[in-house]
Amino acid sequence: MDKIIKKNEEYNESNCGLHETLFHNANGYIGVRGCLEEGVPEEWDTMRGTYINGFYDVIAMKQAENLRNLVEEKQTMLNVADTQTVYLKIDKEFFSLKTGTVLKNIRTLNMKEGYTLREIHWKSPKGKEVSISIKRMTSFVQLSLFTIEYCVTPINFNGKISFLSYHIANVSNYSNPNDPRLAAESEMYLIPQKVEIMDGYSLATSKTRKSELSMCSVVAHKMIATQKVKETSWREENAIIFEASVYTAKSEHIVLEKYSVFSDSIRNKNLEETAVMDLEKVLNNGLNYYYNTQKEYLKHFWYQSELEVMGDEGMNQAVSFNMYQLLQSAAKDCHCNIAAKGLSGEGYEGHYFWDTEMFIAPFFTLTNPELSKTLLSYRYDILEAARENARSLGHKKGVLFPWRTIAGKECSGYFPSGTAQYHIDGDIAYAIMSYYHTTGDLDFIKEKGEEILLETARLWLDVGNYSDGKFVINDVTGPDEYTCMINNNYYTNCCAKYNLLAAVTLYKLLKEKNEIQKLVDKIQLSENEIVEMEEAAEKMYLLYDKKMGINPQDDSFLSKPIWNLEETPKEKFPLLLHYHPLHLYRYQVCKQADVVLAYYLFEKEQTRETMIKSYEYYEKITTHDSSLSTCVFSIVASRLGMKKKAYDYFGNSAKLDLENIHNNTKYGIHTANMGGCYMAIVNGFAELRISEKGVSIAPFLPEKWEGYRFKFRYLGNLIRIFVKKEEIIAELVEGTAISIRIFAKQYELALQEKVIVNYK
Amino acid sequence: MDKIIKKNEEYNESNCGLHETLFHNANGYIGVRGCLEEGVPEEWDTMRGTYINGFYDVIAMKQAENLRNLVEEKQTMLNVADTQTVYLKIDKEFFSLKTGTVLKNIRTLNMKEGYTLREIHWKSPKGKEVSISIKRMTSFVQLSLFTIEYCVTPINFNGKISFLSYHIANVSNYSNPNDPRLAAESEMYLIPQKVEIMDGYSLATSKTRKSELSMCSVVAHKMIATQKVKETSWREENAIIFEASVYTAKSEHIVLEKYSVFSDSIRNKNLEETAVMDLEKVLNNGLNYYYNTQKEYLKHFWYQSELEVMGDEGMNQAVSFNMYQLLQSAAKDCHCNIAAKGLSGEGYEGHYFWDTEMFIAPFFTLTNPELSKTLLSYRYDILEAARENARSLGHKKGVLFPWRTIAGKECSGYFPSGTAQYHIDGDIAYAIMSYYHTTGDLDFIKEKGEEILLETARLWLDVGNYSDGKFVINDVTGPDEYTCMINNNYYTNCCAKYNLLAAVTLYKLLKEKNEIQKLVDKIQLSENEIVEMEEAAEKMYLLYDKKMGINPQDDSFLSKPIWNLEETPKEKFPLLLHYHPLHLYRYQVCKQADVVLAYYLFEKEQTRETMIKSYEYYEKITTHDSSLSTCVFSIVASRLGMKKKAYDYFGNSAKLDLENIHNNTKYGIHTANMGGCYMAIVNGFAELRISEKGVSIAPFLPEKWEGYRFKFRYLGNLIRIFVKKEEIIAELVEGTAISIRIFAKQYELALQEKVIVNYK
Repeated sequence: MDKIIKKNEEYNESNCGLHETLFHNANGYIGVRGCLEEGVPEEWDTMRGTYINGFYDVIAMKQAENLRNLVEEKQTMLNVADTQTVYLKIDKEFFSLKTGTVLKNIRTLNMKEGYTLREIHWKSPKGKEVSISIKRMTSFVQLSLFTIEYCVTPINFNGKISFLSYHIANVSNYSNPNDPRLAAESEMYLIPQKVEIMDGYSLATSKTRKSELSMCSVVAHKMIATQKVKETSWREENAIIFEASVYTAKSEHIVLEKYSVFSDSIRNKNLEETAVMDLEKVLNNGLNYYYNTQKEYLKHFWYQSELEVMGDEGMNQAVSFNMYQLLQSAAKDCHCNIAAKGLSGEGYEGHYFWDTEMFIAPFFTLTNPELSKTLLSYRYDILEAARENARSLGHKKGVLFPWRTIAGKECSGYFPSGTAQYHIDGDIAYAIMSYYHTTGDLDFIKEKGEEILLETARLWLDVGNYSDGKFVINDVTGPDEYTCMINNNYYTNCCAKYNLLAAVTLYKLLKEKNEIQKLVDKIQLSENEIVEMEEAAEKMYLLYDKKMGINPQDDSFLSKPIWNLEETPKEKFPLLLHYHPLHLYRYQVCKQADVVLAYYLFEKEQTRETMIKSYEYYEKITTHDSSLSTCVFSIVASRLGMKKKAYDYFGNSAKLDLENIHNNTKYGIHTANMGGCYMAIVNGFAELRISEKGVSIAPFLPEKWEGYRFKFRYLGNLIRIFVKKEEIIAELVEGTAISIRIFAKQYELALQEKVIVNYK
Repeated sequence: MDKIIKKNEEYNESNCGLHETLFHNANGYIGVRGCLEEGVPEEWDTMRGTYINGFYDVIAMKQAENLRNLVEEKQTMLNVADTQTVYLKIDKEFFSLKTGTVLKNIRTLNMKEGYTLREIHWKSPKGKEVSISIKRMTSFVQLSLFTIEYCVTPINFNGKISFLSYHIANVSNYSNPNDPRLAAESEMYLIPQKVEIMDGYSLATSKTRKSELSMCSVVAHKMIATQKVKETSWREENAIIFEASVYTAKSEHIVLEKYSVFSDSIRNKNLEETAVMDLEKVLNNGLNYYYNTQKEYLKHFWYQSELEVMGDEGMNQAVSFNMYQLLQSAAKDCHCNIAAKGLSGEGYEGHYFWDTEMFIAPFFTLTNPELSKTLLSYRYDILEAARENARSLGHKKGVLFPWRTIAGKECSGYFPSGTAQYHIDGDIAYAIMSYYHTTGDLDFIKEKGEEILLETARLWLDVGNYSDGKFVINDVTGPDEYTCMINNNYYTNCCAKYNLLAAVTLYKLLKEKNEIQKLVDKIQLSENEIVEMEEAAEKMYLLYDKKMGINPQDDSFLSKPIWNLEETPKEKFPLLLHYHPLHLYRYQVCKQADVVLAYYLFEKEQTRETMIKSYEYYEKITTHDSSLSTCVFSIVASRLGMKKKAYDYFGNSAKLDLENIHNNTKYGIHTANMGGCYMAIVNGFAELRISEKGVSIAPFLPEKWEGYRFKFRYLGNLIRIFVKKEEIIAELVEGTAISIRIFAKQYELALQEKVIVNYK
């Protein structure tokens, strides 16, 4: 049962936020945190939230000192209408986990069928026992839909059961006066406009204070009981309350179905109409229809995203959990992307980072390439904002994607470790090429991909310059934020080189096919620029220290003293929370993989010997204070033949959220880490590589595992790899014949045929 | 008449702020902007201010992104009680330059006698003519005292003359809703406590909102007229109004004397008592006593600070103006220092920078060393704050002086171009050594100087490290803010070397004299640290580029492209107001002298040939967007024998404020530039050098001048240098015999003897 997560524990303040995250429902469009329908005691630190992907307001972010063109406002994901609040009343007693006696309390996430469930056996202070089951779903098939099925069964009494179900437009974002990093007071960014009781449903619209966006929610209820139900609705300030009550007998099931449908002005011209039409359709189809289609949708998802670990059930479950969360988080249209915390919480304010392209997209590219295309199309849609960002930084040409954003504008408040991470341009270029190599989708390249590649390549030409015959890139920040605004960051320069060459390669390909002219005209590209790109790539300065035989992280990195990690007390980690940035900058100490990440992505730029030496060097000075680090160290260890290290770095990182290892899952899941774990297995342990030269694997099996298998798509084919103790089985599940290299040998795979390779 | 500045022009909105600055009165303790007593039209951009040096409140300065130990509040100089407001009423008509006819309107700054004067001939709308003279003074002898002598003479009528004189506790700082760099709204930082009419005077106390400081002002009036005067006082909210009226005859002089005395809780335990006692003393002595003592004080000041330019009266006047402003701005006690704008306006919020030690203190060290000692003692008094600053930046030992502060806490909001300018430690060390070499005051070194030198030297040991056998200093910012957080900034490393050697040299001297033990115990200094300091100084990495024969500004500076200054439109200067800092960082372009400043201070670190080459190199890429730049280029040009350049760079910089060249004098004077101009003449044109080896000059006379002369103190002696076209006259005005090198030859000077050297 690796697709089912159960938590059977007392609900208290310390796990409240964590469970809200773990049991959130999302479908890439809407996300609802798994808050208790009946609420929690007022003093608890709860983040009661419902989010629409890409829906934001703009808020002021004043700089302490005013310098030209600094970012002084940011987009922030908004908490929208609360439709998850439902109070249960048994005669005159309100149900709450904090009163009476909780005889059973199980929460379940069912990833096979796509819902969450609360199962409670509760005895009221007056002794009335009820069995409660609350099932919630955000539909993957009807993205605007969130449902609650609230079922109550009296166990030892006959009496009155009432529901008070709320539709609250009056909401604000999370705040925490005890944490200086969060807003101390909840500001109202979303102003209710219309909050009305309609015929058979309630409707609320709100608009943002500054971004001029609107959203609408409509809510309808169905009460199912054998006795006659009394229903009524009324309005209280900016909320509508629906009350339904029934006199019922012992053992009878009372069910309240609550349907919430959302719409927003980014995607819908006629907000209200769209929501109401969707609601009508939903009510017509009924709940079971959506349960069934959800199951079907997920069946297909698990079929093509199969990744199973044998011999470690906990890991197997964690891996499934991660993939499921990525699906829940991923944009299903081009108006949005994947936030660092998905739609599970307000951490990082719902911003999209390079995490998408470098850590999450690879999973979708291999298993669900349409979603990858959607993610890349989002980047295409914000090209203009990326152009403005480049201009505001003084670049005469090219585009620079924002380090963090929702709708495209740069939202990074401290540019030295935000905006200065120019490598994001190269990361997006890399993701485009990966998508192209994996799918062969040249149409996408023609329509969107090559334009992004050329515009980002142009930026590198503008940001870099020649010095002593080498193309150098100064004053940028690499992935490692413990060293900022440095020169010739190894990772960045590799990225830039790759980006330039990718742009040139596809330019030539499209030119050969006579399909480049439209783009050339559109972006006024000169042939000379292509020459310049090739030359810059060729002369790109990739640092190498002869004496030490390693690649320095930047041109002065090795001249700095090495941070004494051994003597740093445990409570001083993560370092960024305990040391002034300027202090960190002055040491050889890395927050995360930087040069080592380059070894995963750009392995041909150096010898295996250099990589091994460098790996061992950086290993000693990396704190892994970022959740994006250990997975990369694991992958590269796999590829360099350090199997034990590969497994050790992989370690429990798959369980980061499930076991709340960083103790901050309450603010939301870590989507990039989830993607990173997937890569650690598929690209690491199995050493899957896809490039212009084809596909290859060179797997190993971690000692503690009995086996693992996974499917991936390559040029339209679906391939399944099964790594066992002594043999590797490759199978073509869908598609026509395909060639795959396993270790050093090329194999031809025919449909539904297996190739078995003995490797021990 | 070089000590008298007159402006005879129509008063309007465009010169209002400028004149408020130019005609401000200050004495180093209090400063009163030269606002019109009767006020200006409400819509005018006036900065009505009175300041107490070192008196501040603490205000929030939120960072856009929260990183560890960033500065999140700042000290800001406060506008204190307004006692300069006096309305004049002629019968029922209020005097104002905006009504009636202004027949004469002259403003005067008399630097010989130390007052400002308004002389007005005004015809009221109803035809009544008056002659008005308003004389204001802040006393150098009684620092708490500000006086206004308001004299009115009816010219063509007999009638009633009334004064309405205000004492306003209800004040706030300047704001400007049109300038995003300034507060949009005036916040009340100073809360009135007690505003009372007493017997013969009024009293107001206020306390700050956060810094827990209090101040008190007391005001008394004397009305002088032949007829009987009717006097009355009343209170309106947080202000007290004194009204005096008299029926007078044509040609009779009516005089209102207004005495304001200030006290503050930084300096006085019993605020009110101190102020009242001072006021009583002042009233006893009478106005003339203070006019006379002011004149005496200034006579002495001009005697020992003599600097006269022959053949360019405008320049002569400008130079006097600058010296006078420095005297007005300079702290007279250790509780404060010299703000970037002195006490003349709220620009830079009254903060103290390195400007004091590097650009202003040299003037005082040469002419008024007691004031220099006071300034350095202020640094000693904030040692603890500098220690905390160092700790917050992660340094285990040593002190780092704040980049900008009032009471000692770092107030820099953007650390890459603020706090990261570690050279301030070396600048202070340099100022200490200059003071010592010039005065021979070993007592100061023993009591305060050596402790600062050792603690700053310790910081260099902590911030730097060895790499390839060289002592390197990474991630600091030099004086040039167009390149930030770089490695081995040439200027900084020179500073550090000097600082280390200074600490060691004086340590050894004091040890020899058996006077170091107390300090060694106090700061727990080990002999080993002295060895480390010597070694670090010896191995300090001073960049030199063999190929180009110049000193690179930092280790990657020369690898960057050169900013095309020629093609940069004029309206794009200063660059910092038009380009994102990250863009500026990526080019070879300098805001101000950086390496070139090192050539002035540390000329022995490189050959003359290198200096010439470097000078020419940096000259081409320096914008002089800082007012601290051209004077340095002038000095170094003088020393390298580039006489024309020396004069050209000096140019009009002496007139920066007097002629409002940067068009921002309305926010306050540029004290550092004023000091820089002094140095350009004395240390530049005359090439005055004082070091452990003695004193020397090697003057030249700018072609356009007929001569110049100046006095300076050296080891207690007062020396006068007169540079004429063909001869140089050196004279010992006070003191015993002294040896001075003129050009390459040593001369012995006996008291009141002249040495004449022919040099052409």
